[in-house]
Amino acid sequence: MNRTVELLAQGQSCWMDDLTRQMIDSGDLARRVAEEGLRGITSNPAIFEKAVAEGANYDQDIARAAMAGRSPVGIYEELITTDVRNACDILRPVYEETAGVDGFVSLEVSPHLAHDTEASIEEARRLWTLVDRPNLFIKIPGTPAGVPAIEQLLFEGININITLLFSIARYEAVAEAYLRALERRLEAGRPIERIASVASFFLSRIDVLVDRLLGQRIVPDRPPPDPDPRALLGKIAIANAKLAYQTFSHIVASNRWMALAEKGARVQRMLWASTSTKNPDYPDLMYVEPLIGPMTINTMTRKTIAAFRDHGTVEATITHGVQSARRMMEDLERLGVSLDLVTAQLENDAVQKFIDPFDSLIKQFAAKGERAVAFGDVDDLRAEARRLRQLVIRMTTEAGSGHPTSCMSCADIVAALFFREMRWDPHDPAARNVDTFVLSKGHAAPILWAVLHEAGAIIEDPLSLRRIDSTLEGHPTPLNPWVRVATGSLGQGLAAANGLAAANRLDRIDARVFCLLGDGECSEGSVWEAAQFASLNGLANVTAIVDVNGLGQSEAAPYHHDTRVFARRFASFGWRTIEIDGHDMTAILAALRAAHDGGPTAIIARTIKGKGVSFLEGADGWHGKPLDREQMSRALEELGDAPPPPPLEAHRVGQVASPQRVTASRSAPAYRLGDKVATREAFGRALERLGGEEHAMVALDGDVKNSTGTEAFAARYPERFFEGFIAEQNMLGVALGLAAAGKIPCAATFACFLTRAYDFIRMAQYSRPAHLVLCGSHAGVSIGEDGPSQMGLEDLAMFRALIESTVLYPADAVSAERLTATAARTNGIVYIRTTRPKTPVIYSNAEEFPIGGAKVLRSSLQDRLTVVAAGITVHEALAASEMLDARGISIRVIDAYSVKPIDVVTLSAAARDTEGLIVVEDHAIDGGLGDAVSTAVGSTAPVHRLGIARLPRSGTKDELLDRYGISRRSIEAKVLQLAA
Amino acid sequence: MNRTVELLAQGQSCWMDDLTRQMIDSGDLARRVAEEGLRGITSNPAIFEKAVAEGANYDQDIARAAMAGRSPVGIYEELITTDVRNACDILRPVYEETAGVDGFVSLEVSPHLAHDTEASIEEARRLWTLVDRPNLFIKIPGTPAGVPAIEQLLFEGININITLLFSIARYEAVAEAYLRALERRLEAGRPIERIASVASFFLSRIDVLVDRLLGQRIVPDRPPPDPDPRALLGKIAIANAKLAYQTFSHIVASNRWMALAEKGARVQRMLWASTSTKNPDYPDLMYVEPLIGPMTINTMTRKTIAAFRDHGTVEATITHGVQSARRMMEDLERLGVSLDLVTAQLENDAVQKFIDPFDSLIKQFAAKGERAVAFGDVDDLRAEARRLRQLVIRMTTEAGSGHPTSCMSCADIVAALFFREMRWDPHDPAARNVDTFVLSKGHAAPILWAVLHEAGAIIEDPLSLRRIDSTLEGHPTPLNPWVRVATGSLGQGLAAANGLAAANRLDRIDARVFCLLGDGECSEGSVWEAAQFASLNGLANVTAIVDVNGLGQSEAAPYHHDTRVFARRFASFGWRTIEIDGHDMTAILAALRAAHDGGPTAIIARTIKGKGVSFLEGADGWHGKPLDREQMSRALEELGDAPPPPPLEAHRVGQVASPQRVTASRSAPAYRLGDKVATREAFGRALERLGGEEHAMVALDGDVKNSTGTEAFAARYPERFFEGFIAEQNMLGVALGLAAAGKIPCAATFACFLTRAYDFIRMAQYSRPAHLVLCGSHAGVSIGEDGPSQMGLEDLAMFRALIESTVLYPADAVSAERLTATAARTNGIVYIRTTRPKTPVIYSNAEEFPIGGAKVLRSSLQDRLTVVAAGITVHEALAASEMLDARGISIRVIDAYSVKPIDVVTLSAAARDTEGLIVVEDHAIDGGLGDAVSTAVGSTAPVHRLGIARLPRSGTKDELLDRYGISRRSIEAKVLQLAA
Repeated sequence: MNRTVELLAQGQSCWMDDLTRQMIDSGDLARRVAEEGLRGITSNPAIFEKAVAEGANYDQDIARAAMAGRSPVGIYEELITTDVRNACDILRPVYEETAGVDGFVSLEVSPHLAHDTEASIEEARRLWTLVDRPNLFIKIPGTPAGVPAIEQLLFEGININITLLFSIARYEAVAEAYLRALERRLEAGRPIERIASVASFFLSRIDVLVDRLLGQRIVPDRPPPDPDPRALLGKIAIANAKLAYQTFSHIVASNRWMALAEKGARVQRMLWASTSTKNPDYPDLMYVEPLIGPMTINTMTRKTIAAFRDHGTVEATITHGVQSARRMMEDLERLGVSLDLVTAQLENDAVQKFIDPFDSLIKQFAAKGERAVAFGDVDDLRAEARRLRQLVIRMTTEAGSGHPTSCMSCADIVAALFFREMRWDPHDPAARNVDTFVLSKGHAAPILWAVLHEAGAIIEDPLSLRRIDSTLEGHPTPLNPWVRVATGSLGQGLAAANGLAAANRLDRIDARVFCLLGDGECSEGSVWEAAQFASLNGLANVTAIVDVNGLGQSEAAPYHHDTRVFARRFASFGWRTIEIDGHDMTAILAALRAAHDGGPTAIIARTIKGKGVSFLEGADGWHGKPLDREQMSRALEELGDAPPPPPLEAHRVGQVASPQRVTASRSAPAYRLGDKVATREAFGRALERLGGEEHAMVALDGDVKNSTGTEAFAARYPERFFEGFIAEQNMLGVALGLAAAGKIPCAATFACFLTRAYDFIRMAQYSRPAHLVLCGSHAGVSIGEDGPSQMGLEDLAMFRALIESTVLYPADAVSAERLTATAARTNGIVYIRTTRPKTPVIYSNAEEFPIGGAKVLRSSLQDRLTVVAAGITVHEALAASEMLDARGISIRVIDAYSVKPIDVVTLSAAARDTEGLIVVEDHAIDGGLGDAVSTAVGSTAPVHRLGIARLPRSGTKDELLDRYGISRRSIEAKVLQLAA
Repeated sequence: MNRTVELLAQGQSCWMDDLTRQMIDSGDLARRVAEEGLRGITSNPAIFEKAVAEGANYDQDIARAAMAGRSPVGIYEELITTDVRNACDILRPVYEETAGVDGFVSLEVSPHLAHDTEASIEEARRLWTLVDRPNLFIKIPGTPAGVPAIEQLLFEGININITLLFSIARYEAVAEAYLRALERRLEAGRPIERIASVASFFLSRIDVLVDRLLGQRIVPDRPPPDPDPRALLGKIAIANAKLAYQTFSHIVASNRWMALAEKGARVQRMLWASTSTKNPDYPDLMYVEPLIGPMTINTMTRKTIAAFRDHGTVEATITHGVQSARRMMEDLERLGVSLDLVTAQLENDAVQKFIDPFDSLIKQFAAKGERAVAFGDVDDLRAEARRLRQLVIRMTTEAGSGHPTSCMSCADIVAALFFREMRWDPHDPAARNVDTFVLSKGHAAPILWAVLHEAGAIIEDPLSLRRIDSTLEGHPTPLNPWVRVATGSLGQGLAAANGLAAANRLDRIDARVFCLLGDGECSEGSVWEAAQFASLNGLANVTAIVDVNGLGQSEAAPYHHDTRVFARRFASFGWRTIEIDGHDMTAILAALRAAHDGGPTAIIARTIKGKGVSFLEGADGWHGKPLDREQMSRALEELGDAPPPPPLEAHRVGQVASPQRVTASRSAPAYRLGDKVATREAFGRALERLGGEEHAMVALDGDVKNSTGTEAFAARYPERFFEGFIAEQNMLGVALGLAAAGKIPCAATFACFLTRAYDFIRMAQYSRPAHLVLCGSHAGVSIGEDGPSQMGLEDLAMFRALIESTVLYPADAVSAERLTATAARTNGIVYIRTTRPKTPVIYSNAEEFPIGGAKVLRSSLQDRLTVVAAGITVHEALAASEMLDARGISIRVIDAYSVKPIDVVTLSAAARDTEGLIVVEDHAIDGGLGDAVSTAVGSTAPVHRLGIARLPRSGTKDELLDRYGISRRSIEAKVLQLAA
C-alpha cells in the first residue's frame, strides 16, 4: 500500500493540480486513479497555457475549431471542456464508488469574472451544461463578488469548488454561503444529497509574503525584537490553515449543520491548495504532512505527490499545534504584520496570476487559429513530402550513391517552401523578382531536383541523378539553371544568401531568400560569420532553416537534437529564432510566415534523418548511402501512395529595377611618369571611378578598406559597399551571392587573408559567376616590418590553380588602374594582386594592358638574358638592368602583368632571343609566376626562378628583398652568374 | 529662462533623484545647480547599487577601505557619506542663498530599519554626524515605526525627509510628528528656525497597482459596471496627491501651525516622488504638470527633467480638480478597490524595493573588498602596466611602425597575467609544465615582447622590434623562443590554445592556457569553431580573454564596447563568461582567478584602445600607427614615472610525464600484389599501426573519419583522437597546438576541405612545427558521382606553395602505408594525398619510398616517351603502357609519389632518355605535379601536362577520367600524337 492511498484512511483525499490532454491521452491519469488512489484533479489557466504552448497535442483541434469559425475564447471553452469531460469520465468510477464524495474534476470560470457576480453565475451555468457531468466542480473564487455567486450556483445544484481562499474571514463567508444554499434548497423542496462543495485554502503564497515582511523586521547585526520574527518564518500559512480547520470543525459541529446533515447534506470539505514548497530552504512536504486529517483534500503538484510517495509521513496532524498557531498569529500582529493586509494582497495577486496566463492562452488560440485559417488544409503538402521522399529514394538507388536520408529529414520543409511559401515561377529559372532558395546542405541535392521535378520546373528525368549527361549533379551546381550558387562544401550557403538578399535590396526587389542548412554544418565558423553579417546589415529577408536531424556523417552531430543550442547561437548573433518540429506541416508554414517580418530569422527545425521509413529513421550508418533495390521496395511501400503534386501558382514579387548598366567611359588614368604611387592606391581610385561608370559594381572589404584602397568607393557609394569586418569567408560568399544576382562584386583584403576563403573561392568556380573580382593587397615580403603573417606569398599559386581564372599583377599605378577596369569587365573570377609600398609610375596614361599580354620594358639585340618580373620586382629588374648596363651586360626586362593567361608569344620570343629567362617574383618559389613561365616556355629555354624559398621574417622592405633573393642585387648576381 | 527655473516662481523646487560619484566628479551636478536651478538631490540604494555595479569609480576607495579592515557596511557608509558630503558642499550656496529653505541632499538610513524605531534613531544620528553638513536631510520612512523616530530626530535638530508616504493617513501622522517635534523644541527652549523637513509622497507606483486592480474589474466583451473602472485608470495617484495637498493646506492654515510659524518654524514642504511615468501609454509628465504649486518639491529623474525642460508646462495646478479627485476616490471604493489596502501594500513593497538593492550593494562591497584583500596591493601591477605602455610606445616609434594602441588596451591584462596569475619560469621558454600564453591578436606583439623584457625573460633589446636581426618580429613567430605558435592572421590563436590544452591533458600536466583575442577578430568564424571544440571537449583549462577595445582597423568594431554580445556568444557556445572592466586590476585578477574552475571561461574585458594617453584613448585613425617623436614624449610624460617591475617568482606546475617515445618497429606492410585497396584505407591502417609504435602520435578528423580512414586510430586510441566535426580551421589550429606541445598530429579530411584551412596551414609554417601531418583524401575527379564540390583539385598547388613542405602522393596500399610512416617521422609540414577508389597493389611489401624519390615502373631502351604519374593516374599510365605495347610503342612510366621534393635525378634521366615527358595528374592543370616536373626538368626536355583544365562535374570515375583527359585512353592518345 502506498502513502497516497494511506492518506484516505486518515480522511484526506489526494488530488492533483495539472490536468492536461497529454495526461489523459497517455493514460497517466487513469493509471494514477486506478493504482495510486488519486481522487480528483483540477485544471487551471496557468497549467493549460503551458500545455498548449509547449506541445502540439491541441494543434489539430485548434485548427479544426478555428476553421469552423470559433472565436479564441470559444476554442478555449471547447478544448478545456473536452479535457474536463474526459477526465470526469476517467474519475467517474471513483465518484460512483464513493457515492459522490470524491472523484471530481474542477474547472474554473474566467478569471476576469472574479469581481462580477452576475457574469460568474452565467458562465458557471454554461460550463456546467457544456461539460454535463455530475462529478464536475465549477471553480469560483471566494472574492466579495464571488460569495453571492457561489450561494446562488449551489442553490441551483451546481457543484462549487471555492478557490483563492486565504483568510479565515473569507472562509467563513463561503461556508455560510454553502449553508444558506442548502437551506434554501430545502426550503424550495429540492434535494441536497448530491450537492458538493469544497473550500480551497491557499498555503505557500502566504508564507512567501509573510516571510518577506518578517524579513523586513530582522535587522542585520542587531539583536532581534520581541517576539523574534525569525521564529515565525515559514510557519504562518500552516498556522492559518490549522485555525481555519478549527473554524470548519466548529461549523460541522454546529446544530445548524447537524440539521442539514440529517437531510443528507455533504460536508463542504477543506481543500489545501498551493501546497508545493516555494522556498528551497524549506522541506518539500511542509504543506502536506502537518495538514492531514478528516474531511480534507490536498491538491498537490506532480512533484509533491512523488515526494510524498517517496518519503511522506502519514499521520493525523491537522489538530496538532492549534494553541501554538494562535500564539503565532498574535506574535505576527505584534510585529506589525497585518494578516488581513497580507491575505487581501494575496487575493488580488492571485486573481492577476490567473488573468495573465488566461490572456496569454487566449492569445495563443487566436494566433494558432489564425494560422490554421491562413494555411487551410495541408494534407496536400504532407502527401507531397511523401512523394519527395519516394523520389529521392528512387533517384539515389538508381544512381547507386547519394544521401537519401539527409533529404528525407527536410522533405516536409522543402515541400512547404516550394509548394506554399515561396513566391516563384517554375517556368522561369532566371527570374530575379522571386523568392530564392539556397541549399547550403548541398549533399541533399536530390531533394532539390525532386521538388523541381514535382513542380514541373525541370524536364530532365530525376532518375538521371549523378549521370555524366545530367544537370542533376551529386551536389548542386549551376549546370542546372535553378541553382544560383554551387554548394556541397558545407557552411557556404548562408553567406551567398546574404549576397543575394543584399542584391535584392540594391535593386529594390522585395523578395525573400531561404537558406537550408544542416545541423552538422553549423560547426563551420563561416556560418557564424554569415550570421553576423546578416544581422549587422539588417538583411530581414534572409531566412535560415536549420535541419537538425541530429546525425553527422561519422557519428551523431555534436548537439544531437538540441535545437536550443542553435537557437541560442543564432540569437546571440542577432537573429530572431523560431524552434519547431520540422515534420509538423502547419508549424513549418507558420514559422516561414512568421519569418516574414523582423528577421533575419533562423527556423530551427527538429527533424529525423530518414524520416518516413522505419528502418532509416534516426538509424546510424545510413549517411550518404543509397538503398538497395529490396530496401527501396520496402521503403516505397511504407511511404504509401501519394496523390499527384498540389497545383502550383506562379508567383512573382514586385518589379525588378531595370539594370542601369552605363557604358563605361573608359577614361584614361592621369598619373605622371615617375610619381610614386602604390598600386593598391591606384586600384582604389580605379574602383571608385568604376563605381560611377558601372552601377552594377559593388565592393566589399574585410575591415582593411583604408589599406586595400576600397575606402574611396565606400565613401562615395556607401549603399554599394559592404563592410565584411574580419570574416573573409563570408565576404567571399556575399560577393558570390551578389554576383549570382547580376552584380559585379569586387572584394578586397590583404592577399594573405584570401587564403582564409580558399574553399569559398574554389567553390565559386562552380557557381560560374559572370563577374567576380578579388583583390589581394600587401603581397609578398615587400610589405616589410609587419612580418610573414601579413605577407601574401601563396596567392598566385592559389588563383592559378583555379581551373578558370584570370590573374593580374600590376607594377605601377597606370597598369593598376587599367587592369582594375579590365578585371571588372572580364568574365569569371579575376584576381588582382597589389603591392604595399609606393612604386614609380612607369607607363604612360595611354598604355593599354590586354589580358594575356606582357610588356617588354627593356630590349636590345644584345640582350644576354631575360628577366621576367611582375609587380614590385619589375622595379627591381629595371634597376638591375641599369646596374648591369654599367657592367656592359644588356638584359631584356618583361613585365608579366598577366600571370594567367601568360603571354606565351612575348615569352617565347625572349626565350628564342636570349640565353635564358630569370623569373623573379615576390611570392613563394613554387606555384607562382616562375611555374607559369616554366610551363609556358620552359622547353624552349632554361627558366631560372627567383622567389621566396625560405621562411621570411620582419625587416625593412629592401632588407627583405635582398635577404630572400629577389632584389635588384639578387637579379644582378644571378645574371652575372649565368652570363659568366 | 528655462522651465525648471520657472517652477521656482510657482513655489516648486526641482530636485533630482540620482546622486552618484560620477555626477559629482563630472561636474554635472554643479552645472545643474548653477545653470538649471536644481535645488536638491537625493540618494538611494537602488541608484547607488547601479553606479557601483556599472562603473569603476568607487573601486579604489573600496579596495582601500577593505584593506583597512572595514566591513562591507562600513565601506558603504564611508562611500555614501563622502558622496553626500561632497554634494552638500556643491548645494551649500543654494542653502545659504535661500536661508535654509532649499539646497538639500538626502541620505537614507538602512532600509532594514523601516520597522525599528530605536535603530532608526541611532543610525540617523550617526549619519548626521558623519556627514556633518547643515543642508543634509536624513531620510526616514513614514512607517508606523518611523513616525516616532521622525519626531525624536526632528526634536534633536536633525533634518528629516520623510519617505515612502503613500496614504493621507500616514501623511497626517508625520505632519503631526513634525508639529510635535517643533513644539517640544520650543518647550525645551531650543530654536526651531533651522529645523527642516519634507514629506515625500510617492505617485506612479500607486497607479501601477490601482490600474491593475481596476483592470480586474474590466471584463472583456461585457458592458462596464457603474462606475466605469476605465475612467479611473492612471488618475488615482494624482487625485491622492491633490487631496494630500489639501490636508497640507489645512495644516499650514491652522492656528497651531501659525503659532509655530511665528516662532520661525519652516513649513514641512510636500515632496512629489516617484514621478517618472511607468506606463508607456501615459504622458511622460503626468506626475509633474498637475502638481505644481507653492511649498512643493518635485524630485525627478534625469529623463523626466529633460522631458520637462523640453516640453513641460509651468502653471499653478495643484489646487485644480480637487472635487473631481474626491469623486474618483469614492468611485474607487465603490468598485471594491480599497485605497487603504493599496497604500499598505505599496508601503511594504517599497521597503523591500530598497532592501533588495541595499543587500546587493553590501554584497558587492563584500565581494570587491574580499578581492582587494585577496589580491593585496596591486599598485605594482598598475605601475607595471604603465611601464608596458611606455615601452610599446617607445618600441613602435623606434621601429616606425606597429600597433601601440592595440597594445595599450590590453596592458593591464598582460601585466596581471605575467606578473601575478600565470605560473611560469622566465628562465625556461621550453618548459612544458607551466601556464601558456597565446597572443591571438598577434598585432599586439610589442606588448608580449615588452612584458617578456620586463620579466627578464628575454635579453634582446626591445627597441630592436621589427628589425631584421631581431626575434621581436612585427607579429609573433617562434623565431622568438617564447612563442609557441605564430599569430597575426586573426582568429587562429584559440584553436591553437585548444591544442596546447589537449596536449597538456594527454600528458597529465595541470596547467592553464590563456589566449588573448581582440574584439574585431571575433568576427572570424574560426573563433567559434574553436569555442565549440573547447566546450565539447571540456577543455576547462582554456581561458580566453577578449580585449574589447571597440575599434577595428578601418572603423569601429561592429559591436563597439558592448561586451554582452561577446558574453552571449561565448555562453551560447558552452563557455562560462565573465564581463569585466579591463583596466580594473583587481577585477582582472578576480576574473582570472575565477576562471580557474568550471571553464572553458571567456573573460570579456571592456577596454580603451590607446588607454593611458589622452590623445590616443578611443581615438580614430590610430590603428597600426606609431607615434612620432614629439607625440611619444608627450605620451611618456602623461604615463609618468613607474617604479621597476615587480619581482616575479618562477612557478611551475605538476610534473611532465616523460615522453614515452617508442622505437618504431617499422614493420613492413602486408598486402598482396594485385589486391584492390584504396590508398585512404591503407593510410588509415598505417595510422593505426603508428599509434601503437609512437605514443606522441595523435589524430584529428573533420567528421569524415569513416571516409579518410582515421576511424581505426580513433577506435583504438580514443584518448588520442580528436573529432573536430565540420570545422576544418579549428582542426588545423588544434593540430598545430598539439604539435607545439611535442605531439605528432595527423589531421585528415577530404582534400578539397583542407582549402578551408589554408590560412591556418600557411600560418603553421611560421610556427615551425617539428611534425604536422595532413592527409587529404578523395583527391581529384576520380571520386566520381559526388561532383566537383567534393573533388580535391587545388591541394597539390596549395601545399607546394608552402615554402617548407613535403608533398606525398601514394599510388597503392604499400606506398600509402610506407609514406604515412615516413610522414610521421619527417620534420615540418607533410601532406599526404589519398584516393577514393580502390586501386591494385603494385609494390611488394619490402619496397621503400624515400622522400624525394620516384619509381620507374616501366622502362626499356626503346622508350619513346615518359609518362610521369602519381596516385590514381599511375594505374592509368600502366594500362596505357600496355595498350601502347600492343601498338608497338614503348613508354617509360614513372610514379612520382614524392611531389615535393621531386626526384630530379630520375626525371632528368627520363628527359635524357626519351623524347619528352607527359605528366598526368588528377589535379588542376596548374600548380600541381605538372608544374613541379616542368620547373625541375623542363629545360632539358619538353614537358606536356595532362590535368583537369575544365570545370568538372558528376559522373562515374571512368567517365570523368576520360572526359577530363587523364585516363589511359587520354594518355594513349597523347603518346600517339607526340610519337607520330
